[in-house]
Amino acid sequence: MRDVAIIGVGLTRFGERWEHGLRDLMAEAGLNALNDAGISSDDVEMLFGGVMASGRFIGQEHIAALLSDQLGFKNIPAVRVENACASGGTALRQGYMAVASGIHDIVAVGGVEKMTDVTPSEATSALGGAGDQEWELGQGITFPGLYALMAKRHMHEFGTTEEQMAAVSVKNHSNAAKNKYAQFRKEITIEDVMNSKPVADPLKIFDCSPISDGAAALILAPLEIAKKYNDTPIKISASTQATDTLSLAERESITAIKATQIAGDKAFKAAKMERKDIDVVEVHDCFTIAEILAMEDLGFYKKGSAAKAIADGETALNAKLSVNTSGGLKGCGHPVGATGVKQAVEITWQLRGEAGERQVKGAEIGMTHNVGGSGATAVVHIMERVN
Amino acid sequence: MRDVAIIGVGLTRFGERWEHGLRDLMAEAGLNALNDAGISSDDVEMLFGGVMASGRFIGQEHIAALLSDQLGFKNIPAVRVENACASGGTALRQGYMAVASGIHDIVAVGGVEKMTDVTPSEATSALGGAGDQEWELGQGITFPGLYALMAKRHMHEFGTTEEQMAAVSVKNHSNAAKNKYAQFRKEITIEDVMNSKPVADPLKIFDCSPISDGAAALILAPLEIAKKYNDTPIKISASTQATDTLSLAERESITAIKATQIAGDKAFKAAKMERKDIDVVEVHDCFTIAEILAMEDLGFYKKGSAAKAIADGETALNAKLSVNTSGGLKGCGHPVGATGVKQAVEITWQLRGEAGERQVKGAEIGMTHNVGGSGATAVVHIMERVN
Repeated sequence: MRDVAIIGVGLTRFGERWEHGLRDLMAEAGLNALNDAGISSDDVEMLFGGVMASGRFIGQEHIAALLSDQLGFKNIPAVRVENACASGGTALRQGYMAVASGIHDIVAVGGVEKMTDVTPSEATSALGGAGDQEWELGQGITFPGLYALMAKRHMHEFGTTEEQMAAVSVKNHSNAAKNKYAQFRKEITIEDVMNSKPVADPLKIFDCSPISDGAAALILAPLEIAKKYNDTPIKISASTQATDTLSLAERESITAIKATQIAGDKAFKAAKMERKDIDVVEVHDCFTIAEILAMEDLGFYKKGSAAKAIADGETALNAKLSVNTSGGLKGCGHPVGATGVKQAVEITWQLRGEAGERQVKGAEIGMTHNVGGSGATAVVHIMERVN
Repeated sequence: MRDVAIIGVGLTRFGERWEHGLRDLMAEAGLNALNDAGISSDDVEMLFGGVMASGRFIGQEHIAALLSDQLGFKNIPAVRVENACASGGTALRQGYMAVASGIHDIVAVGGVEKMTDVTPSEATSALGGAGDQEWELGQGITFPGLYALMAKRHMHEFGTTEEQMAAVSVKNHSNAAKNKYAQFRKEITIEDVMNSKPVADPLKIFDCSPISDGAAALILAPLEIAKKYNDTPIKISASTQATDTLSLAERESITAIKATQIAGDKAFKAAKMERKDIDVVEVHDCFTIAEILAMEDLGFYKKGSAAKAIADGETALNAKLSVNTSGGLKGCGHPVGATGVKQAVEITWQLRGEAGERQVKGAEIGMTHNVGGSGATAVVHIMERVN
C-alpha cells in the first residue's frame, strides 16, 4: 500500500441551482478539480461518482458513465457508488483504495445531487430511502423523525437541551456566512432556531440541513508523484468505513452511532494520531443532534458532554477545535451525494491555507466524517499537509 | 497484484417472486454463497452490492448496509455500486480489486433487484434511467427504443434479419428450460418470437428480457488460500471495464458497442488468451440484438456475421461456442442488479462441472460480459478452472 494525496479540488456553489442540471453541476465541479490539479481529462484513469437518489430526483441512474462522458474522460472505468448520505465519502474511499493499491495513479472522485427538481415532500420521501424502508419509513416515520428519536433519547439520558442543539446551527451558519460556496450566507441566533417551524419534535427547521443542488470533485494521485502536480499535496493519512444495522430498533443504543465510533477509532489507529492532533474537522451535521453525536462518537468529547461544549463555543472557528468551517451540511447545504466529497474539499483548502475568512490558523491535520442514513454507514478520513 | 478466486456462489430462482422482498432475496443468495464457500458471515471483510434502481422500485437506497445487516456481517465496510444493468459486473470488479490489491482477503459480492412491486410502465420508466434522461428518454424514446435503433441500423448495414434475432431468443429459452433458477423454463420457436407482440420495431416482446426479481452472490478470496475453502476454486484471469458516451447520438457507430470492444480486448490481453480459448460465455442479451452485438464486439465473430452464425446454431449448447447456457437475460430473467453476478455464478458452475443438464463438456475457461444501458458501460471477466 502506498500513500495517497489529493492534488486537485473543485466545487460548485451549493443551493437552489434552478438554472443548472445535474450534468452541468458535475461538469463545473469536475473541471474546477482538473484545473486545480493542472491535468487534462486524458490523464484520469478511473472515476468514482457518489450520488444518492438521482433516480428519484431526476430519473437518471448510471451517473458515473454520464460524469465520465461529460468530462471527456477516455473510455475509463467509471463506477457510481451509493451509501445514502455517505455516498461522497464512500466514493472518496474507493478512489483512495484504487490509488493506494497501485492499480491506478490518477483517479477522479465526484459527488453530486440535484434535489430541487422535485417537491419537498417527494425529496423527503426519496431521502427516506436512506433508512429502513420496510421496518421504519414504511411504518410512517420520516427521516427527520429518526433523528428526532435520537435527539429525544439524548436529551433524556444526558440532559441535552434544545438550546444546545440550536447552538450547532448558529455556529455553522456563522461559518457559512464566510463561505462563498454556501447555500446560507447568513448569521442566525439561538432565538431564530428556537422560534423556527417544528419538523419532528424536538427538531425544528433550523435544526435540519436543507434540500440542495451541488457538486464536488477531487483528483487523487500517489503521494510520491503528487508534487509534480501541486506544491501543497494533501496526504490522506487514514480512510476507514464501518456499518451498523439499518434500522434504529436493532441497535444497542440510539444515543451513539456505532459505525462512527468504529470508523473513527480505526482512522486514528491507521494514522497513528490522537484526537488532540486534529486541527479542523468536517462532521456530518444533517441535523444538529448529529453533530453532537459525531463529536462524542469520534472521541473528541465524552458521551453526553459535547452539547454543552459546543454551546460554550469550544468548536467555533479558531476556538479549541474548529468544526464545520464550511458551514457544515446545515449552513453550506447538503446535496446528498456531494457532501462527503465537499468535506474533503474544505479540509484541503484549510490545510493548504486557502480558506480565506474562515481559515483555521496553522491547520496541519484535518478530518472528515460522513454518515449514511441514521448511522448505518460512517466513513472517516484523516488528512495532513506534507511539505 | 495477486490472483483472485471465486470460492463460493449463491443464487435465488429468478422470476416473479411475489412472496419475497428484496431483503429476503439477498439473504437467500448470500447465505447460499456463504454455505457454498464453507465460511461464516464473520469471515467476510468487505461487501460490494450491485443494484440499479431500488430507489424507484421499492423506495430503498443504502442497499449495501441493508445487505450487510441482513447477512449478519460485522460492521464491515459495505458499498453499493450502480452502473445501470452492469451494476452486478461492476460490483464483482470492485470486489476483485479489493482482493487483488491485498487490501482484503475474503470479500462478498452481491447483486439484487426487486422489480415486480411496480407496474410494467413504472419499471420501463425506471430502466430508462440507464440511458440519457435529458438527451434521450426525456425526448420520448423508451429504453427498448434505443436498442431498436441499433437493431434497425444493424439490419440496414449487414442484412441482419428479424428471424436471426429471434434465433437468439429460441436458443436462450432452450438453455433456460434446463436451468431450475430460470424465469422461463420453456422452449419456444422462431414463429413464437415472430408472432409475439411488437415492443419497439423491429423488437418484439420475445426479443426482450423480462422484468424479474432475483439475487446472486459470490465469495472471493486470494487464489493462494482458495483451496482451503474449495476443491475447485475458479480463478479470475481478467477483470476489465470501459465506458462510452451515455447517449447513442454521440457515438461513432451504433452497430457496435465500443465499451464492449475495449473491455473485451483488454480482458484477452490481461489473461493472455485468445478467443478460441474460451469454452463458455455469458453475454448481455437484454435484447436479442444485444447478443449479436456482443458476439461481434467481443471478437468471436466479424462485424455483421454473428447473426447468421447464431441462427446456424454455432452458439448453441455444446456447439462451436456455448453462449448463455444459463438462458441469458432473456430466458433466465434479468433482475438488473443481479445479472452481472449471476453470469459469474453460471460460469463458476460450468467450470466446476456442476451445470447439470446444461453442462458444457470439458469447460475450462469461461467469460462474462455485462453491459450498462445502451452500452455506456461494459464489464468483462475471464475465469478459469485451476486444479
